[in-house]
Amino acid sequence: MTQFRQLSLGAFLMAGGHHIAAWRHPDVPADPLDFPAYKRVAQLAEAARFDALFVADSVAAPTDAIASQTSRSVYFEPLTLLSALSAVTERIGLISTVTTSYNEPYHVARKFASLDHLSGGRAGWNLVTSDAAAEAFNFGRDAHIPHAERYARAREFHRVVRGLWDSWADDAFVRDKASGQFYDPARLHVLDHVGDHFKVRGPLNVACSPQGRPVVVQAGSSETGRELAAETAEVVFTAQTSLASAQAFYADLKGRLAAFGRDEDDLRIMPGVFVVVGQSEGEAREKFEQFQELVEPEVGIALLGRMLGNFDLSGYPQDGPLPDLPLTENGQQSRQKLLTELAGNESLTLAQLGRRIAGGRGHYSLIGTPKQVADELQAWFEQRAADGFNVLVPHLPGGLEDFATQVVPELQRRGLFRTEYQGRTLREHLGLKRPGNEFFA
Amino acid sequence: MTQFRQLSLGAFLMAGGHHIAAWRHPDVPADPLDFPAYKRVAQLAEAARFDALFVADSVAAPTDAIASQTSRSVYFEPLTLLSALSAVTERIGLISTVTTSYNEPYHVARKFASLDHLSGGRAGWNLVTSDAAAEAFNFGRDAHIPHAERYARAREFHRVVRGLWDSWADDAFVRDKASGQFYDPARLHVLDHVGDHFKVRGPLNVACSPQGRPVVVQAGSSETGRELAAETAEVVFTAQTSLASAQAFYADLKGRLAAFGRDEDDLRIMPGVFVVVGQSEGEAREKFEQFQELVEPEVGIALLGRMLGNFDLSGYPQDGPLPDLPLTENGQQSRQKLLTELAGNESLTLAQLGRRIAGGRGHYSLIGTPKQVADELQAWFEQRAADGFNVLVPHLPGGLEDFATQVVPELQRRGLFRTEYQGRTLREHLGLKRPGNEFFA
Repeated sequence: MTQFRQLSLGAFLMAGGHHIAAWRHPDVPADPLDFPAYKRVAQLAEAARFDALFVADSVAAPTDAIASQTSRSVYFEPLTLLSALSAVTERIGLISTVTTSYNEPYHVARKFASLDHLSGGRAGWNLVTSDAAAEAFNFGRDAHIPHAERYARAREFHRVVRGLWDSWADDAFVRDKASGQFYDPARLHVLDHVGDHFKVRGPLNVACSPQGRPVVVQAGSSETGRELAAETAEVVFTAQTSLASAQAFYADLKGRLAAFGRDEDDLRIMPGVFVVVGQSEGEAREKFEQFQELVEPEVGIALLGRMLGNFDLSGYPQDGPLPDLPLTENGQQSRQKLLTELAGNESLTLAQLGRRIAGGRGHYSLIGTPKQVADELQAWFEQRAADGFNVLVPHLPGGLEDFATQVVPELQRRGLFRTEYQGRTLREHLGLKRPGNEFFA
Repeated sequence: MTQFRQLSLGAFLMAGGHHIAAWRHPDVPADPLDFPAYKRVAQLAEAARFDALFVADSVAAPTDAIASQTSRSVYFEPLTLLSALSAVTERIGLISTVTTSYNEPYHVARKFASLDHLSGGRAGWNLVTSDAAAEAFNFGRDAHIPHAERYARAREFHRVVRGLWDSWADDAFVRDKASGQFYDPARLHVLDHVGDHFKVRGPLNVACSPQGRPVVVQAGSSETGRELAAETAEVVFTAQTSLASAQAFYADLKGRLAAFGRDEDDLRIMPGVFVVVGQSEGEAREKFEQFQELVEPEVGIALLGRMLGNFDLSGYPQDGPLPDLPLTENGQQSRQKLLTELAGNESLTLAQLGRRIAGGRGHYSLIGTPKQVADELQAWFEQRAADGFNVLVPHLPGGLEDFATQVVPELQRRGLFRTEYQGRTLREHLGLKRPGNEFFA
């Protein structure tokens, strides 16, 4: 029942910010492919001592009716982006989503190991299964891979990637100029994996990572997702809308670790939190409303449809209630349940519900003063609902600047967040131990 | 029959340098995963106004008997490496090899488009088919894809990548904050490719590249390879050992362009050249010998076996001649022919031939004074054997420092090479025109 003394903070990097209408705000640079803007945000987060930057991903561009009204269709490929950012930062962790559904483990193992070397041990992989059917169509398929198969594939994918990462013992590369021996063949493991989904010989053509292995992150919250996380994840991102539900999730996931021979300290749980901060609560709310007013009802409703599992809600009355929808088969059930409850509890119309999720996407929202925000984060942290938070802000860089200059100092005053980096690697920032190599002592 | 006024120079980036024994030299940093060393070399090449950095690649680590005596088993994944370098350079082009044999076009199109945006228009893709059977084993296969099928796949792969790069018209992203329109749906093309090897819907989730499209490079020299290059390549790297053979290759390839509706100026031919430079010819030769002495005979012979098409030559007498070998089926024929002739012409033993190729790998070798080297480069350039050169040096950074400080100024004095960058993109450095979008005017 150990609890970490300090909380972890991740900064969610998304062009323009997390609010669906952020790009329309006058303060927001609206080009999603502007590297200097990303560099500014990364350096800002590092100056505030965040544990990591986090990047989401999809291998398809949305083309539905409202896609042209959002800024989400084009963006940097995450591994190229984080590699570029690794060269202009020193300490902050670099976590990217990469799907296991439409990739090969050799490529994925290699890219993260390479990023880990480039960055001196700051890479993290958010292992996901694809939840957008559109991705299937870009990779030779006529339909999406079913949920159960995606998870079976993901589990084997992880096993292969981990095995490839452990191809070389830490001390394999003797580089003895005199004798001419570059590596010791006895310290090389050829994986020779043969499984249901993959057949991969190895070894990886990248040496053992500075962190031992890059940090493995997950975000699934279905039963299958939780089991996979309990077995393999070191950080879990999650969307929770109340202290009680976050505590239940926390207890459930930490409780599953022992069955896999793992300790509580081996897994950090970081709910997403959408934060708008102001000198007064009124100022914060006013800032938020500036973004809300920019959400066209059909954009909010379409976003809602996507989050519920790619439903087209455009035929329903905007002022009517959320219609009854069939439970989807594609792993969106937990999100669907959450949004249905939210609509019911507050009697929201379709348009209102769409606008509601336009900012935080169903993540916990905190709109208030630095003290109010810090109080909530502290409560969640101390009451076993979170080991840290993935911070979502409505717009970038402004929203993160507010958080960095107002909330971070408040957390630091309370002793809840570091004032200087203690370690050099992402693993050290997160307080995760360096894993041993599974093939070598 | 236009000829470019100035020649192009590419710097071949390889950990430690191109000589197989470079890592054993006391001046060479022997860690192949040391980013600061790459950064130093990239900035050195940029200060010398090179057109581009070039990185080779393989998706497998060699594990044969002599692999442990070379430094070639582990290295950075090239797209992550070049992305990191893009953040610490301003002008120099960034070209990476990526195989079409064990990749998906959506991923490849995306990564290079992303690098092009990150770098402000400096990305180039060296499109190859895999020639190492070991790669197949890392991607679920029991055997290598046969040569003809690899090329058919490569050609379709290129078509898909090009189509994805053209998903968005140049002016698609209107980003009108007032109206809320981010892009104009009429300026988006959904590829919907269905072919023998790939089925890819699109669109790409990266906007039109700053260069129109990243530059496409190729290096194949078989009949099939030349046809593919004439149809699709904008730069061709090639290994030529004499002015006459280089002229023949140049004339042949440029002669094939018209059939595809292309001009001579649409394709730049850049032979590799292995350069060791000294204040006197004797000094240059002595430098080279320092590396040659570090080549163990079995290492040179094994390298030779690899170059001939993965033959195990370890059973043949080191002091005997190159044995008769069956012509391989895997696209190595041109290299095999070249090396067989070299061995015959100079009556080299197996060990001598192995040592001979330890530096330049069969590329043209120039070992001499800056004036001697410049004379040769000028002759090749003026006599239609080359539009430029891909410069290979025995060791890094030293060998490139020598070239930059001694040969480059000599070429500049002769008016053969730029003293300042004129353009900002790789395409501009190479004098290649910006391509139109195939779907939009």
